[in-house]
Amino acid sequence: MGFLEALKEIIPTERVSTNETILQQHSSDESYHTPHLPDVVLYPENTEEVSQIVKLAGEWEVPVVSYGLGTSLEGSMIPHNGGIMIDFTLMNKIIEVRPEDFLVKIQPGVTRTQLEKELRKYGLFFPVDPGADATLGGMAATNASGTTSVKYGIMRDNVRDLEVVLPNGNVIHTGNLAAKSSSGYHLNGLFVGSEGTLGCFTELTLKVHGIPEHNMAGRAAFDTIDHAVEAVINVLQAGIPVARVELVDEQSMRQINAFSDTDYKEVPTLFFEFHGNEAGLEQDVVFTKEIIEDCNCREFAFESDTAGRNRLWEARHNAAYAYLHGNPGKKQMVTDVCLPISELAGAIKDARDAVDSSGLLGGIVGHVGDGNYHILLMVDTENPEDIKKANVVNERIVQYALTRGGTCTGEHGVGIGKQKYQRQEHGGALDVMQAIKATIDPKGLFNPGKVVDIKS
Amino acid sequence: MGFLEALKEIIPTERVSTNETILQQHSSDESYHTPHLPDVVLYPENTEEVSQIVKLAGEWEVPVVSYGLGTSLEGSMIPHNGGIMIDFTLMNKIIEVRPEDFLVKIQPGVTRTQLEKELRKYGLFFPVDPGADATLGGMAATNASGTTSVKYGIMRDNVRDLEVVLPNGNVIHTGNLAAKSSSGYHLNGLFVGSEGTLGCFTELTLKVHGIPEHNMAGRAAFDTIDHAVEAVINVLQAGIPVARVELVDEQSMRQINAFSDTDYKEVPTLFFEFHGNEAGLEQDVVFTKEIIEDCNCREFAFESDTAGRNRLWEARHNAAYAYLHGNPGKKQMVTDVCLPISELAGAIKDARDAVDSSGLLGGIVGHVGDGNYHILLMVDTENPEDIKKANVVNERIVQYALTRGGTCTGEHGVGIGKQKYQRQEHGGALDVMQAIKATIDPKGLFNPGKVVDIKS
Repeated sequence: MGFLEALKEIIPTERVSTNETILQQHSSDESYHTPHLPDVVLYPENTEEVSQIVKLAGEWEVPVVSYGLGTSLEGSMIPHNGGIMIDFTLMNKIIEVRPEDFLVKIQPGVTRTQLEKELRKYGLFFPVDPGADATLGGMAATNASGTTSVKYGIMRDNVRDLEVVLPNGNVIHTGNLAAKSSSGYHLNGLFVGSEGTLGCFTELTLKVHGIPEHNMAGRAAFDTIDHAVEAVINVLQAGIPVARVELVDEQSMRQINAFSDTDYKEVPTLFFEFHGNEAGLEQDVVFTKEIIEDCNCREFAFESDTAGRNRLWEARHNAAYAYLHGNPGKKQMVTDVCLPISELAGAIKDARDAVDSSGLLGGIVGHVGDGNYHILLMVDTENPEDIKKANVVNERIVQYALTRGGTCTGEHGVGIGKQKYQRQEHGGALDVMQAIKATIDPKGLFNPGKVVDIKS
Repeated sequence: MGFLEALKEIIPTERVSTNETILQQHSSDESYHTPHLPDVVLYPENTEEVSQIVKLAGEWEVPVVSYGLGTSLEGSMIPHNGGIMIDFTLMNKIIEVRPEDFLVKIQPGVTRTQLEKELRKYGLFFPVDPGADATLGGMAATNASGTTSVKYGIMRDNVRDLEVVLPNGNVIHTGNLAAKSSSGYHLNGLFVGSEGTLGCFTELTLKVHGIPEHNMAGRAAFDTIDHAVEAVINVLQAGIPVARVELVDEQSMRQINAFSDTDYKEVPTLFFEFHGNEAGLEQDVVFTKEIIEDCNCREFAFESDTAGRNRLWEARHNAAYAYLHGNPGKKQMVTDVCLPISELAGAIKDARDAVDSSGLLGGIVGHVGDGNYHILLMVDTENPEDIKKANVVNERIVQYALTRGGTCTGEHGVGIGKQKYQRQEHGGALDVMQAIKATIDPKGLFNPGKVVDIKS
């Protein structure tokens, strides 16, 4: 009996696909990385099926890659060694909302907007918002974050428990339902961000938050990026609890205006959001205005109504798509470093210089409250020269960050693109990571070649 | 050449002690757990010395235990297998404060109050406050937390990077200086809370916070604990961002009044603190008052001046010492479970019943915003009956928590006391923890018998 036949013994034929179109759909993500077909795509419906699939894969020594919606920007789920692709689309139930405990238990295929809709009924929301409508399983796998992390933390901060099918087929829970614990080693933190290299997530318990009583949003326009970054540092120094603070450079403002039909000033701009009670917010906003005016802010426009606020954040959210839309036929290479905030202004200046020298079109957007920024570089992936230029820019940006206490990836994950920086970034700690990988996945079958590349 | 002579080759004789009094001082903590002498106490001055000590210990297969100030409540650093005790007293430098980055780099022997004093010069503070004036190295080792975690998180949330000497003597860094990262596996989280079983911390980079513009504190007195817990749940549900909310039962209020010379009502009481801007706090306080009055709050007293606020929190901080002072000759067994907050009222009711049935004197204090509470049980450690009764109470409390999604230790660590619950709490995840321990410390020399007990 062949492997496919053995698979069909444990999962119904209609949920085992080797259809060329299906394989194609699971061969790439939203990045510029080279696609690769899996050998077969499976659609399990429950943990038990995942466990059986994994055990069988272990016996046959076939690679196993998990798939959410394919929104990775670093090739995290491209199956370069082929094998099984486990698509979690059918495991998309919201299992339980516990409003008193600020918890929700879900299956990994639940998407961000699906969760948002359900939680709204309880006056709750899940804060981590990477922009794309990713699955929560995928967001946990890459330790995603986004615009609100400066206040609410990243995925790792908001995962209370994971049910994981280990490479040996055993099912474990990495946490519990309590708000804190000093018991055992912190497996939650280890598995979040492991990009499918240590097992498959089959259930997630997430921390959720009350929808803030009030929120206010605004745009602050500056002459230079330096002034904008200085303003962010001063606002944070003053202890003003911003919920979001995003930097968008003038190139990106131009793309946004064209795509979103807005008429924002096309200059370096900060997008702010504040959450809290009404009186507190009013005081925060007055104080923020004072601080940023001292940093040569040209215009500070508050959106007081919901429509204006939504328009503002939708425009910011669509920045990446705006570039794609404005440059048909091109794909994006998105850089993703994060630095201590005192190094941010220098980093962005150097990055702008790198982009300009490359001759590529590229703009800056950034979660500057965390010291994380992206360069959206438009490349023609058919043109090796473009790829080469983009790689030069990325290399310079990463080196700038790594030599100043930063990281090569703030939120997109290692995938394929950041593999080559792992030794430089982690030094001897990479040996510990490799030892952990080898002990949990001794055959090296789980998402081989990603995060921690070991020869099995 | 014997082991001691070999040690003196790498660390000066005056920093190698086998003096009986010194050994005695390093044989116990603040708990009721049985003391045990180490064979030798070492006082290294830098990372290189620690690395050499560790390598030598590996060659001679001698156990290695790290020592901060001995404030553990679960016997985490009692060297039950003897061996080397590394005392970090001399590694107590504050290496660098980076105010713009909200970071501080310190050696592990720095104490909480030492750090507080230094940070105050910059308008900053480190929020994690377990009560005792522990070392930061020790606090990271047990993943300590305390009264402010409901707002600022626990140790694990506030450790950005650790320098660790691994059991093989190699020195690694577990993180970096960036506010977030999706690079590699999350070793920060793994090492925080590992209680010295995976290596020695020789440097910590911690996240610090701006001293809040304003803070307000108050006491709310209730007829019953049920009403007090209900009030906490409702305040959190309303999204009011409390900085601390502590429950103190009537027995504990009595001890506090006697010890701290206060005249607070001797009824179940919540201690509140709010941090923010003035206008926001005023609104928060009004709203809180409304909510808790609906929960049968008898008296809500705000301390508007600094002196009153300090007196309030000092009284709360000294609750444990108040019991010891009021019961000379006795020691404390402190329980430490944490549950989802919806289970808290039931848990505390059951715990009170357990204490009353035992005949022991015991009171409840709790970080109720996190679902974490302690029973301070007064025991005569010379009397086996007392120990037996206390164990019965603890067992019942832990079982109540574990069967309701909670944890056996919210913040005190596993040490010796919570060892026996590890399999029940973690199930198959304990196998993963044991595998990690075995791969990082294959000879099982680092704090043997703690957290993850494996036979080497």
